[in-house]
Amino acid sequence: MIESMLHRRTVRKYAECPVDDALLRRLLEAAERTQTMGNLQLYSVVVTRSEEGKSRLAPLHFHQPMCTSAPVVLTFCADFHRTTEWARHRDGHPGYDNALSFLNAATDALLYCQNFCTLAEDEGLGLCFLGTTIYNAQGIIDALRLPPLVFPVATITLGWKAEEGVETDRLPLSAILHEETYQPVTATTIERDYAEKEAREDSRQFVAENGLQTLAQVFTDVRYKKADNEAMSQGLLAALWKQVFLNE
Amino acid sequence: MIESMLHRRTVRKYAECPVDDALLRRLLEAAERTQTMGNLQLYSVVVTRSEEGKSRLAPLHFHQPMCTSAPVVLTFCADFHRTTEWARHRDGHPGYDNALSFLNAATDALLYCQNFCTLAEDEGLGLCFLGTTIYNAQGIIDALRLPPLVFPVATITLGWKAEEGVETDRLPLSAILHEETYQPVTATTIERDYAEKEAREDSRQFVAENGLQTLAQVFTDVRYKKADNEAMSQGLLAALWKQVFLNE
Repeated sequence: MIESMLHRRTVRKYAECPVDDALLRRLLEAAERTQTMGNLQLYSVVVTRSEEGKSRLAPLHFHQPMCTSAPVVLTFCADFHRTTEWARHRDGHPGYDNALSFLNAATDALLYCQNFCTLAEDEGLGLCFLGTTIYNAQGIIDALRLPPLVFPVATITLGWKAEEGVETDRLPLSAILHEETYQPVTATTIERDYAEKEAREDSRQFVAENGLQTLAQVFTDVRYKKADNEAMSQGLLAALWKQVFLNE
Repeated sequence: MIESMLHRRTVRKYAECPVDDALLRRLLEAAERTQTMGNLQLYSVVVTRSEEGKSRLAPLHFHQPMCTSAPVVLTFCADFHRTTEWARHRDGHPGYDNALSFLNAATDALLYCQNFCTLAEDEGLGLCFLGTTIYNAQGIIDALRLPPLVFPVATITLGWKAEEGVETDRLPLSAILHEETYQPVTATTIERDYAEKEAREDSRQFVAENGLQTLAQVFTDVRYKKADNEAMSQGLLAALWKQVFLNE
Protein backbone atom coordinates (compact mmCIF):
# COMPACT_ATOMS: atom_id res chain seq x y z
CA MET A 1 0.00 0.00 0.00
CA ILE A 2 2.83 2.41 0.90
CA GLU A 3 4.58 1.43 -2.33
CA SER A 4 1.55 2.07 -4.53
CA MET A 5 0.91 5.38 -2.76
CA LEU A 6 4.49 6.46 -3.42
CA HIS A 7 3.91 6.08 -7.14
CA ARG A 8 0.48 7.60 -7.54
CA ARG A 9 0.14 10.17 -10.30
CA THR A 10 -2.52 12.48 -11.60
CA VAL A 11 -3.90 11.34 -14.96
CA ARG A 12 -5.31 13.93 -17.35
CA LYS A 13 -5.69 11.88 -20.57
CA TYR A 14 -8.27 9.13 -20.81
CA ALA A 15 -8.97 6.29 -23.25
CA GLU A 16 -12.12 6.52 -25.37
CA CYS A 17 -13.78 3.54 -23.66
CA PRO A 18 -16.45 4.24 -21.05
CA VAL A 19 -16.27 3.49 -17.35
CA ASP A 20 -18.68 0.67 -16.58
CA ASP A 21 -21.58 1.89 -14.48
CA ALA A 22 -21.60 -1.18 -12.22
CA LEU A 23 -17.91 -0.65 -11.42
CA LEU A 24 -18.46 3.04 -10.70
CA ARG A 25 -21.31 2.22 -8.35
CA ARG A 26 -19.29 -0.47 -6.60
CA LEU A 27 -16.51 2.04 -5.95
CA LEU A 28 -18.86 4.80 -4.80
CA GLU A 29 -20.59 2.33 -2.50
CA ALA A 30 -17.37 0.93 -1.01
CA ALA A 31 -16.16 4.47 -0.32
CA GLU A 32 -19.24 4.94 1.86
CA ARG A 33 -17.28 3.08 4.56
CA THR A 34 -15.27 6.28 5.06
CA GLN A 35 -15.41 7.75 8.56
CA THR A 36 -18.27 10.24 8.79
CA MET A 37 -19.68 12.59 11.44
CA GLY A 38 -22.18 10.74 13.64
CA ASN A 39 -22.59 8.28 10.76
CA LEU A 40 -24.72 10.91 9.00
CA GLN A 41 -22.81 10.81 5.68
CA LEU A 42 -23.02 14.52 5.05
CA TYR A 43 -22.18 14.32 1.34
CA SER A 44 -23.58 13.55 -2.07
CA VAL A 45 -22.08 12.95 -5.51
CA VAL A 46 -23.39 14.16 -8.83
CA VAL A 47 -22.26 11.99 -11.76
CA THR A 48 -21.94 13.77 -15.10
CA ARG A 49 -21.63 11.54 -18.17
CA SER A 50 -23.66 13.40 -20.80
CA GLU A 51 -21.92 15.65 -23.32
CA GLU A 52 -24.39 18.36 -22.47
CA GLY A 53 -23.67 18.14 -18.76
CA LYS A 54 -19.89 18.14 -19.28
CA SER A 55 -20.14 21.15 -21.59
CA ARG A 56 -22.05 23.04 -18.92
CA LEU A 57 -19.33 22.29 -16.36
CA ALA A 58 -16.33 22.95 -18.62
CA PRO A 59 -16.33 26.79 -18.53
CA LEU A 60 -16.84 26.68 -14.75
CA HIS A 61 -13.58 24.73 -14.55
CA PHE A 62 -11.79 27.25 -16.82
CA HIS A 63 -12.11 24.90 -19.82
CA GLN A 64 -9.58 22.42 -18.48
CA PRO A 65 -9.71 19.79 -21.26
CA MET A 66 -10.23 16.83 -18.86
CA CYS A 67 -13.64 18.20 -18.07
CA THR A 68 -15.01 17.27 -21.49
CA SER A 69 -12.54 14.53 -22.52
CA ALA A 70 -13.08 12.34 -19.44
CA PRO A 71 -15.93 9.82 -19.71
CA VAL A 72 -17.06 10.67 -16.20
CA VAL A 73 -17.01 13.83 -14.12
CA LEU A 74 -17.89 13.51 -10.44
CA THR A 75 -18.83 16.49 -8.29
CA PHE A 76 -18.57 15.81 -4.56
CA CYS A 77 -20.81 18.00 -2.43
CA ALA A 78 -21.08 18.90 1.23
CA ASP A 79 -24.72 18.00 1.88
CA PHE A 80 -26.81 18.86 4.92
CA HIS A 81 -29.95 19.10 2.79
CA ARG A 82 -30.78 15.38 2.78
CA THR A 83 -30.23 15.06 6.54
CA THR A 84 -32.26 18.22 7.19
CA GLU A 85 -35.16 16.99 5.04
CA TRP A 86 -35.04 13.61 6.78
CA ALA A 87 -35.23 15.36 10.15
CA ARG A 88 -38.10 17.58 9.01
CA HIS A 89 -40.09 14.55 7.90
CA ARG A 90 -39.38 12.90 11.26
CA ASP A 91 -40.38 15.71 13.61
CA GLY A 92 -36.79 16.71 14.34
CA HIS A 93 -35.44 20.25 14.76
CA PRO A 94 -32.51 20.57 12.36
CA GLY A 95 -30.19 23.56 12.76
CA TYR A 96 -27.46 23.15 10.15
CA ASP A 97 -27.61 26.49 8.34
CA ASN A 98 -24.30 27.66 9.79
CA ALA A 99 -20.58 27.74 9.07
CA LEU A 100 -19.75 24.93 11.50
CA SER A 101 -22.17 22.59 9.75
CA PHE A 102 -20.79 23.57 6.36
CA LEU A 103 -17.28 22.66 7.47
CA ASN A 104 -18.51 19.40 9.02
CA ALA A 105 -20.22 18.44 5.77
CA ALA A 106 -17.27 19.60 3.63
CA THR A 107 -15.01 17.41 5.77
CA ASP A 108 -17.25 14.38 5.26
CA ALA A 109 -17.38 15.03 1.51
CA LEU A 110 -13.61 15.45 1.13
CA LEU A 111 -12.72 12.35 3.15
CA TYR A 112 -15.25 10.39 1.10
CA CYS A 113 -13.84 11.83 -2.12
CA GLN A 114 -10.27 10.85 -1.22
CA ASN A 115 -11.27 7.29 -0.39
CA PHE A 116 -13.18 7.04 -3.65
CA CYS A 117 -10.02 8.19 -5.48
CA THR A 118 -7.87 5.61 -3.69
CA LEU A 119 -10.29 2.82 -4.61
CA ALA A 120 -10.60 3.98 -8.22
CA GLU A 121 -6.83 4.22 -8.67
CA ASP A 122 -6.45 0.77 -7.15
CA GLU A 123 -8.77 -0.55 -9.89
CA GLY A 124 -6.45 0.96 -12.50
CA LEU A 125 -8.55 4.02 -13.30
CA GLY A 126 -6.88 7.39 -13.78
CA LEU A 127 -8.17 10.61 -12.31
CA CYS A 128 -7.55 14.29 -11.83
CA PHE A 129 -8.73 16.43 -8.93
CA LEU A 130 -10.07 19.80 -10.13
CA GLY A 131 -9.29 22.42 -7.51
CA THR A 132 -11.40 24.88 -9.49
CA THR A 133 -14.65 23.62 -7.93
CA ILE A 134 -14.80 26.33 -5.28
CA TYR A 135 -13.66 29.08 -7.68
CA ASN A 136 -17.01 29.14 -9.47
CA ALA A 137 -19.16 27.42 -6.89
CA GLN A 138 -22.33 29.32 -7.77
CA GLY A 139 -22.07 28.32 -11.43
CA ILE A 140 -21.70 24.66 -10.46
CA ILE A 141 -24.61 24.95 -8.01
CA ASP A 142 -26.77 26.26 -10.86
CA ALA A 143 -25.55 23.71 -13.43
CA LEU A 144 -26.17 20.74 -11.13
CA ARG A 145 -29.31 22.28 -9.55
CA LEU A 146 -28.02 21.90 -6.02
CA PRO A 147 -30.63 22.80 -3.39
CA PRO A 148 -29.94 24.85 -0.22
CA LEU A 149 -27.45 23.24 2.18
CA VAL A 150 -25.66 21.47 -0.67
CA PHE A 151 -22.30 22.88 -1.76
CA PRO A 152 -19.74 21.52 -4.26
CA VAL A 153 -16.28 21.06 -2.73
CA ALA A 154 -14.40 18.76 -5.12
CA THR A 155 -14.53 17.54 -8.70
CA ILE A 156 -12.86 14.46 -10.14
CA THR A 157 -12.44 13.65 -13.81
CA LEU A 158 -12.26 9.89 -14.24
CA GLY A 159 -11.47 7.36 -16.95
CA TRP A 160 -9.22 4.57 -18.10
CA LYS A 161 -5.68 5.85 -18.50
CA ALA A 162 -4.35 7.03 -21.86
CA GLU A 163 -1.14 8.25 -20.21
CA GLU A 164 0.86 7.26 -17.18
CA GLY A 165 0.96 10.76 -15.73
CA VAL A 166 3.98 12.58 -14.41
CA GLU A 167 5.42 11.94 -10.97
CA THR A 168 5.75 15.31 -9.28
CA ASP A 169 8.08 16.25 -6.44
CA ARG A 170 7.13 16.72 -2.80
CA LEU A 171 8.62 18.64 0.11
CA PRO A 172 10.66 16.75 2.71
CA LEU A 173 8.72 15.57 5.76
CA SER A 174 10.41 18.26 7.88
CA ALA A 175 8.34 20.89 6.04
CA ILE A 176 5.02 19.57 7.29
CA LEU A 177 5.81 17.75 10.54
CA HIS A 178 5.82 19.47 13.93
CA GLU A 179 6.58 17.75 17.24
CA GLU A 180 4.29 18.73 20.13
CA THR A 181 3.87 22.36 19.05
CA TYR A 182 4.19 24.23 15.75
CA GLN A 183 7.84 25.07 15.15
CA PRO A 184 8.66 28.50 13.71
CA VAL A 185 9.16 28.88 9.98
CA THR A 186 12.46 30.74 9.53
CA ALA A 187 14.96 31.53 6.81
CA THR A 188 16.80 28.38 7.91
CA THR A 189 13.80 26.04 7.72
CA ILE A 190 12.78 27.53 4.37
CA GLU A 191 16.23 26.81 3.00
CA ARG A 192 16.11 23.27 4.43
CA ASP A 193 12.63 22.55 3.04
CA TYR A 194 12.53 24.41 -0.29
CA ALA A 195 16.11 24.48 -1.62
CA GLU A 196 15.83 21.12 -3.39
CA LYS A 197 12.50 22.02 -4.98
CA GLU A 198 13.84 25.37 -6.17
CA ALA A 199 16.93 23.77 -7.67
CA ARG A 200 14.98 21.31 -9.83
CA GLU A 201 15.27 21.70 -13.58
CA ASP A 202 11.48 21.93 -14.06
CA SER A 203 11.26 24.62 -11.37
CA ARG A 204 13.97 26.73 -12.99
CA GLN A 205 12.26 26.40 -16.34
CA PHE A 206 8.95 27.42 -14.76
CA VAL A 207 10.59 30.57 -13.37
CA ALA A 208 12.33 31.41 -16.65
CA GLU A 209 9.19 30.88 -18.77
CA ASN A 210 7.34 33.38 -16.61
CA GLY A 211 10.18 35.90 -16.68
CA LEU A 212 10.41 35.88 -12.88
CA GLN A 213 13.16 35.65 -10.28
CA THR A 214 11.91 32.98 -7.89
CA LEU A 215 9.70 29.91 -7.89
CA ALA A 216 7.52 31.34 -5.13
CA GLN A 217 6.71 34.26 -7.42
CA VAL A 218 5.25 31.87 -10.00
CA PHE A 219 2.66 30.96 -7.41
CA THR A 220 2.03 34.35 -5.80
CA ASP A 221 2.35 36.59 -8.87
CA VAL A 222 1.02 34.36 -11.67
CA ARG A 223 -0.95 31.30 -10.59
CA TYR A 224 -2.68 32.17 -7.30
CA LYS A 225 -2.71 35.94 -7.12
CA LYS A 226 -3.94 38.04 -4.22
CA ALA A 227 -6.48 40.00 -6.30
CA ASP A 228 -7.92 36.83 -7.87
CA ASN A 229 -8.10 35.05 -4.53
CA GLU A 230 -9.92 37.97 -2.98
CA ALA A 231 -12.41 38.25 -5.82
CA MET A 232 -13.10 34.50 -5.79
CA SER A 233 -13.31 34.58 -2.01
CA GLN A 234 -16.17 37.07 -2.26
CA GLY A 235 -17.88 34.78 -4.75
CA LEU A 236 -17.37 31.79 -2.47
CA LEU A 237 -18.86 33.58 0.54
CA ALA A 238 -21.79 34.85 -1.54
CA ALA A 239 -22.51 31.30 -2.73
CA LEU A 240 -22.29 30.00 0.84
CA TRP A 241 -24.83 32.65 1.89
CA LYS A 242 -27.11 31.71 -0.97
CA GLN A 243 -26.98 28.04 0.00
CA VAL A 244 -27.90 29.24 3.53
CA PHE A 245 -24.74 27.92 5.15
CA LEU A 246 -23.97 31.31 6.75
CA ASN A 247 -27.33 32.08 8.33
CA GLU A 248 -25.99 32.02 11.87
CA MET B 1 -8.71 -2.91 -1.72
CA ILE B 2 -12.52 -2.73 -2.04
CA GLU B 3 -12.79 -5.71 0.33
CA SER B 4 -10.59 -4.15 2.99
CA MET B 5 -12.44 -0.82 2.68
CA LEU B 6 -15.76 -2.58 3.20
CA HIS B 7 -14.55 -3.84 6.55
CA ARG B 8 -12.86 -0.78 7.94
CA ARG B 9 -13.85 0.18 11.47
CA THR B 10 -13.10 2.98 13.86
CA VAL B 11 -10.86 1.85 16.74
CA ARG B 12 -11.10 3.64 20.08
CA LYS B 13 -9.08 1.30 22.32
CA TYR B 14 -5.34 0.98 21.91
CA ALA B 15 -2.67 -1.41 23.21
CA GLU B 16 -0.12 -0.05 25.68
CA CYS B 17 2.79 -0.41 23.25
CA PRO B 18 4.02 2.71 21.48
CA VAL B 19 3.85 3.45 17.75
CA ASP B 20 7.37 3.33 16.36
CA ASP B 21 8.51 6.77 15.27
CA ALA B 22 10.16 5.51 12.07
CA LEU B 23 6.90 3.82 11.02
CA LEU B 24 4.90 6.96 11.78
CA ARG B 25 7.28 9.05 9.72
CA ARG B 26 7.19 6.57 6.83
CA LEU B 27 3.39 6.77 6.78
CA LEU B 28 3.28 10.57 7.05
CA GLU B 29 5.83 10.82 4.25
CA ALA B 30 4.07 8.37 1.93
CA ALA B 31 0.80 10.28 2.42
CA GLU B 32 2.57 13.33 1.01
CA ARG B 33 1.87 11.81 -2.43
CA THR B 34 -1.76 12.92 -1.99
CA GLN B 35 -3.05 15.29 -4.66
CA THR B 36 -2.48 18.88 -3.56
CA MET B 37 -3.26 22.33 -4.95
CA GLY B 38 -0.50 23.45 -7.31
CA ASN B 39 1.78 20.98 -5.51
CA LEU B 40 1.98 23.49 -2.64
CA GLN B 41 1.05 21.01 0.13
CA LEU B 42 -1.06 23.44 2.10
CA TYR B 43 -1.06 21.42 5.32
CA SER B 44 0.96 20.52 8.37
CA VAL B 45 0.66 17.91 11.11
CA VAL B 46 1.36 18.35 14.79
CA VAL B 47 2.27 15.09 16.55
CA THR B 48 1.36 14.88 20.23
CA ARG B 49 2.95 12.03 22.20
CA SER B 50 3.70 13.63 25.57
CA GLU B 51 1.30 13.13 28.47
CA GLU B 52 1.34 16.87 29.01
CA GLY B 53 0.40 17.61 25.42
CA LYS B 54 -2.39 15.03 25.38
CA SER B 55 -3.78 16.40 28.65
CA ARG B 56 -3.88 19.88 27.16
CA LEU B 57 -5.84 18.58 24.14
CA ALA B 58 -8.23 16.30 26.04
CA PRO B 59 -10.68 18.94 27.36
CA LEU B 60 -10.74 20.59 23.94
CA HIS B 61 -12.02 17.26 22.57
CA PHE B 62 -14.66 17.02 25.35
CA HIS B 63 -12.52 14.52 27.27
CA GLN B 64 -13.06 11.71 24.80
CA PRO B 65 -10.92 8.98 26.41
CA MET B 66 -8.97 8.17 23.21
CA CYS B 67 -7.37 11.56 23.45
CA THR B 68 -5.25 10.54 26.45
CA SER B 69 -5.25 6.73 26.03
CA ALA B 70 -3.89 6.71 22.48
CA PRO B 71 -0.10 6.68 22.20
CA VAL B 72 -0.24 9.26 19.42
CA VAL B 73 -2.58 12.16 18.67
CA LEU B 74 -2.19 13.84 15.28
CA THR B 75 -3.66 17.26 14.52
CA PHE B 76 -3.94 17.99 10.80
CA CYS B 77 -3.92 21.68 9.94
CA ALA B 78 -4.80 23.79 6.93
CA ASP B 79 -1.53 25.71 6.50
CA PHE B 80 -0.91 28.76 4.30
CA HIS B 81 1.63 30.12 6.78
CA ARG B 82 4.61 28.10 5.56
CA THR B 83 3.88 28.91 1.91
CA THR B 84 3.34 32.58 2.73
CA GLU B 85 6.62 32.79 4.66
CA TRP B 86 8.43 31.04 1.82
CA ALA B 87 7.00 33.58 -0.63
CA ARG B 88 7.93 36.51 1.64
CA HIS B 89 11.53 35.29 1.82
CA ARG B 90 11.57 34.95 -1.98
CA ASP B 91 10.22 38.35 -2.98
CA GLY B 92 6.75 37.04 -3.78
CA HIS B 93 3.43 38.75 -3.05
CA PRO B 94 1.33 36.23 -1.13
CA GLY B 95 -2.39 36.95 -0.71
CA TYR B 96 -3.85 34.00 1.15
CA ASP B 97 -5.60 35.71 4.06
CA ASN B 98 -9.06 34.94 2.70
CA ALA B 99 -11.85 32.37 2.88
CA LEU B 100 -11.02 30.83 -0.50
CA SER B 101 -7.46 30.12 0.58
CA PHE B 102 -8.66 28.67 3.88
CA LEU B 103 -10.92 26.23 2.04
CA ASN B 104 -8.14 25.36 -0.41
CA ALA B 105 -5.78 24.58 2.48
CA ALA B 106 -8.46 22.73 4.46
CA THR B 107 -9.10 20.59 1.38
CA ASP B 108 -5.41 19.77 1.05
CA ALA B 109 -5.20 18.91 4.76
CA LEU B 110 -8.29 16.67 4.74
CA LEU B 111 -7.29 14.73 1.63
CA TYR B 112 -3.83 14.24 3.15
CA CYS B 113 -5.37 13.16 6.46
CA GLN B 114 -7.59 10.56 4.77
CA ASN B 115 -4.69 9.07 2.84
CA PHE B 116 -2.63 8.91 6.01
CA CYS B 117 -5.52 7.04 7.68
CA THR B 118 -5.77 4.57 4.81
CA LEU B 119 -2.03 3.86 4.96
CA ALA B 120 -2.04 3.53 8.76
CA GLU B 121 -5.00 1.14 8.74
CA ASP B 122 -3.31 -0.89 6.03
CA GLU B 123 -0.34 -1.33 8.39
CA GLY B 124 -2.69 -2.72 11.03
CA LEU B 125 -2.93 0.40 13.16
CA GLY B 126 -6.26 1.47 14.60
CA LEU B 127 -7.51 5.02 14.62
CA CYS B 128 -10.37 7.31 15.43
CA PHE B 129 -11.23 10.58 13.69
CA LEU B 130 -12.18 13.30 16.21
CA GLY B 131 -14.80 15.55 14.65
CA THR B 132 -14.47 17.83 17.66
CA THR B 133 -11.40 19.60 16.21
CA ILE B 134 -13.38 22.52 14.80
CA TYR B 135 -15.66 22.80 17.84
CA ASN B 136 -12.90 24.30 19.97
CA ALA B 137 -10.52 25.43 17.27
CA GLN B 138 -9.19 28.42 19.21
CA GLY B 139 -8.26 26.22 22.17
CA ILE B 140 -6.35 23.86 19.90
CA ILE B 141 -4.66 26.79 18.15
CA ASP B 142 -3.45 28.01 21.55
CA ALA B 143 -2.42 24.55 22.81
CA LEU B 144 -0.37 23.76 19.69
CA ARG B 145 0.83 27.36 19.24
CA LEU B 146 -0.40 27.59 15.66
CA PRO B 147 0.67 30.82 13.93
CA PRO B 148 -1.61 32.93 11.68
CA LEU B 149 -2.81 31.14 8.52
CA VAL B 150 -2.65 27.75 10.26
CA PHE B 151 -5.96 26.19 11.32
CA PRO B 152 -6.71 22.73 12.78
CA VAL B 153 -9.25 20.80 10.72
CA ALA B 154 -8.91 17.16 11.81
CA THR B 155 -7.54 15.10 14.69
CA ILE B 156 -6.68 11.41 14.66
CA THR B 157 -5.97 9.23 17.70
CA LEU B 158 -3.68 6.42 16.68
CA GLY B 159 -2.31 3.21 18.15
CA TRP B 160 -2.10 -0.55 17.89
CA LYS B 161 -5.55 -2.07 18.24
CA ALA B 162 -6.85 -3.33 21.59
CA GLU B 163 -10.30 -3.92 20.08
CA GLU B 164 -11.61 -4.76 16.65
CA GLY B 165 -14.09 -1.91 16.58
CA VAL B 166 -17.74 -2.10 15.60
CA GLU B 167 -18.90 -2.19 12.00
CA THR B 168 -21.52 0.52 11.63
CA ASP B 169 -24.29 0.72 9.04
CA ARG B 170 -24.37 2.97 5.99
CA LEU B 171 -27.10 4.40 3.80
CA PRO B 172 -27.80 2.76 0.44
CA LEU B 173 -26.01 4.30 -2.54
CA SER B 174 -29.29 5.84 -3.74
CA ALA B 175 -29.14 8.28 -0.81
CA ILE B 176 -25.94 9.93 -1.98
CA LEU B 177 -25.83 9.37 -5.75
CA HIS B 178 -27.38 11.80 -8.24
CA GLU B 179 -27.32 11.34 -12.03
CA GLU B 180 -26.59 14.53 -14.02
CA THR B 181 -28.43 16.86 -11.62
CA TYR B 182 -29.40 16.74 -7.95
CA GLN B 183 -32.64 14.77 -7.60
CA PRO B 184 -35.25 16.07 -5.14
CA VAL B 185 -35.33 14.64 -1.62
CA THR B 186 -38.96 13.68 -0.98
CA ALA B 187 -41.01 11.63 1.48
CA THR B 188 -40.57 8.73 -0.95
CA THR B 189 -36.78 8.94 -1.23
CA ILE B 190 -36.48 9.40 2.55
CA GLU B 191 -38.48 6.22 3.09
CA ARG B 192 -36.35 4.40 0.49
CA ASP B 193 -33.04 5.59 1.97
CA TYR B 194 -33.69 5.72 5.73
CA ALA B 195 -36.29 3.01 6.50
CA GLU B 196 -33.71 0.26 6.94
CA LYS B 197 -31.51 2.39 9.19
CA GLU B 198 -34.49 3.41 11.32
CA ALA B 199 -35.63 -0.19 11.69
CA ARG B 200 -32.27 -1.43 13.05
CA GLU B 201 -32.26 -2.72 16.61
CA ASP B 202 -29.45 -0.34 17.65
CA SER B 203 -31.34 2.62 16.19
CA ARG B 204 -34.53 1.75 18.08
CA GLN B 205 -32.54 1.39 21.28
CA PHE B 206 -30.89 4.76 20.65
CA VAL B 207 -34.32 6.40 20.30
CA ALA B 208 -35.74 4.66 23.38
CA GLU B 209 -32.71 5.51 25.57
CA ASN B 210 -33.18 9.16 24.74
CA GLY B 211 -36.93 9.07 25.33
CA LEU B 212 -37.61 10.31 21.81
CA GLN B 213 -39.92 9.35 18.96
CA THR B 214 -37.59 9.21 15.94
CA LEU B 215 -33.96 8.49 15.13
CA ALA B 216 -33.59 11.86 13.42
CA GLN B 217 -34.50 13.53 16.71
CA VAL B 218 -31.53 11.86 18.40
CA PHE B 219 -29.32 13.85 16.03
CA THR B 220 -31.22 17.14 15.88
CA ASP B 221 -32.46 17.33 19.49
CA VAL B 222 -29.64 15.64 21.42
CA ARG B 223 -26.35 15.19 19.58
CA TYR B 224 -26.04 18.07 17.11
CA LYS B 225 -28.43 20.74 18.32
CA LYS B 226 -29.20 24.02 16.57
CA ALA B 227 -28.22 26.17 19.58
CA ASP B 228 -24.90 24.35 20.04
CA ASN B 229 -24.10 24.48 16.34
CA GLU B 230 -24.77 28.20 16.24
CA ALA B 231 -22.66 28.93 19.31
CA MET B 232 -19.77 26.81 18.00
CA SER B 233 -20.16 28.40 14.58
CA GLN B 234 -19.55 31.80 16.12
CA GLY B 235 -16.44 30.42 17.81
CA LEU B 236 -15.25 28.89 14.55
CA LEU B 237 -15.67 32.15 12.63
CA ALA B 238 -13.97 34.12 15.42
CA ALA B 239 -11.00 31.70 15.31
CA LEU B 240 -10.83 31.99 11.52
CA TRP B 241 -10.71 35.79 11.87
CA LYS B 242 -7.99 35.53 14.48
CA GLN B 243 -5.90 33.29 12.22
CA VAL B 244 -6.45 35.99 9.53
CA PHE B 245 -8.25 33.68 7.11
CA LEU B 246 -11.20 36.09 6.78
CA ASN B 247 -9.34 39.32 6.07
CA GLU B 248 -10.82 39.71 2.61
